[in-house]
Amino acid sequence: MRDIVIIGHKAKTSGDFSLNDLPGSAGRMDILCRCVSSALFLSFGMRRDVNVHLLLLGEPDPGKIIRFEGLHLRYLNPDERSSGSLIQKALLKNAAGQDIRSTPGVWTRTGDLNSLLASFEGRTLLYLREDGKDFREIAREIQDPVFILGDHTGVTEEEEKQLLEAGAQVISVGPISLHSNHCITLIHNELDRAEAERGEIPGGNISRPED
Amino acid sequence: MRDIVIIGHKAKTSGDFSLNDLPGSAGRMDILCRCVSSALFLSFGMRRDVNVHLLLLGEPDPGKIIRFEGLHLRYLNPDERSSGSLIQKALLKNAAGQDIRSTPGVWTRTGDLNSLLASFEGRTLLYLREDGKDFREIAREIQDPVFILGDHTGVTEEEEKQLLEAGAQVISVGPISLHSNHCITLIHNELDRAEAERGEIPGGNISRPED
Repeated sequence: MRDIVIIGHKAKTSGDFSLNDLPGSAGRMDILCRCVSSALFLSFGMRRDVNVHLLLLGEPDPGKIIRFEGLHLRYLNPDERSSGSLIQKALLKNAAGQDIRSTPGVWTRTGDLNSLLASFEGRTLLYLREDGKDFREIAREIQDPVFILGDHTGVTEEEEKQLLEAGAQVISVGPISLHSNHCITLIHNELDRAEAERGEIPGGNISRPED
Repeated sequence: MRDIVIIGHKAKTSGDFSLNDLPGSAGRMDILCRCVSSALFLSFGMRRDVNVHLLLLGEPDPGKIIRFEGLHLRYLNPDERSSGSLIQKALLKNAAGQDIRSTPGVWTRTGDLNSLLASFEGRTLLYLREDGKDFREIAREIQDPVFILGDHTGVTEEEEKQLLEAGAQVISVGPISLHSNHCITLIHNELDRAEAERGEIPGGNISRPED
């Protein structure tokens, strides 16, 4: 299982935004949409062993978490507008402390970074920062990872403190600073290669149990 | 210099499509938009040493080429709608056999795959196919590459014949079939790493000469 957390500091936390203006009125929601797509899509199917957690911290109700579960996901296409639409549908639900299902494979609740990190107890936390250890050097040793990425503003000092206290290792994906969705593609590739080397199916089984 | 060609077999060749429906009425233009973004964006700037060539083969006027020159490009944001808008503006020009400038750094002309390949004479042509040689193994030896990628339908037999006759090597980027924009991210990363190892600035200088 691979879990990927993306922190959207400006991402709107109500559903009243226009899908025609994901970068603007939706608070750089376009970044999160591209991350969802990079995290979940293969050429001919979906990565069923991946969960994506969007931590939305923009107005009007900062602290909502939307979870995409690859195993159960439906109605997602690779374009930004498609993931934007599923995010919007989730935000139109009245999120509470407990998970509410929005559409198949998409769940929403209220929460902050600490509540997310608590849900990953026992997992390997890997936090992406430009000066981190090259993930290529350690990908083969990694099992059941949880990756945490910031948006265009990175992560705050306070968030970094929480991540390090939770035991996150700091990793990077190359010699140059990249967009979060590009980092996700690179992470997946290293893990796919490691799985193939071990004789496993790279990217996992792409069919859903109910198919 | 890195040149990247993406063949859009269904991509509309007139500008009368809606930016709200890039996957549908625009003929999977969303794929090309994501490729433009992956090819050109760094976290804090643009890859100035990259040109992107979109070969549009959809109706009503198959055979148009739109070129994005990283060195001179303006008005491009990373979201799909932004590149879609620049593509649309280029398609509203009356393309002919000679380049016409649409917006800063964006050019359009009529042409086919062979005319594109002829313009790359002397360059290293690399064609992406799932069963190709792992690019990671050869990235360090590559100078001035031109990458050619298909869309969701791959490349046709006829196109593959033209590519191989032009001397293209067949490469892949990992053990699993990925979307074209994800392949572009992986290619860049290998070249960035090779440049960093040689002591060069990975990704090249990101400022434009006129800045």
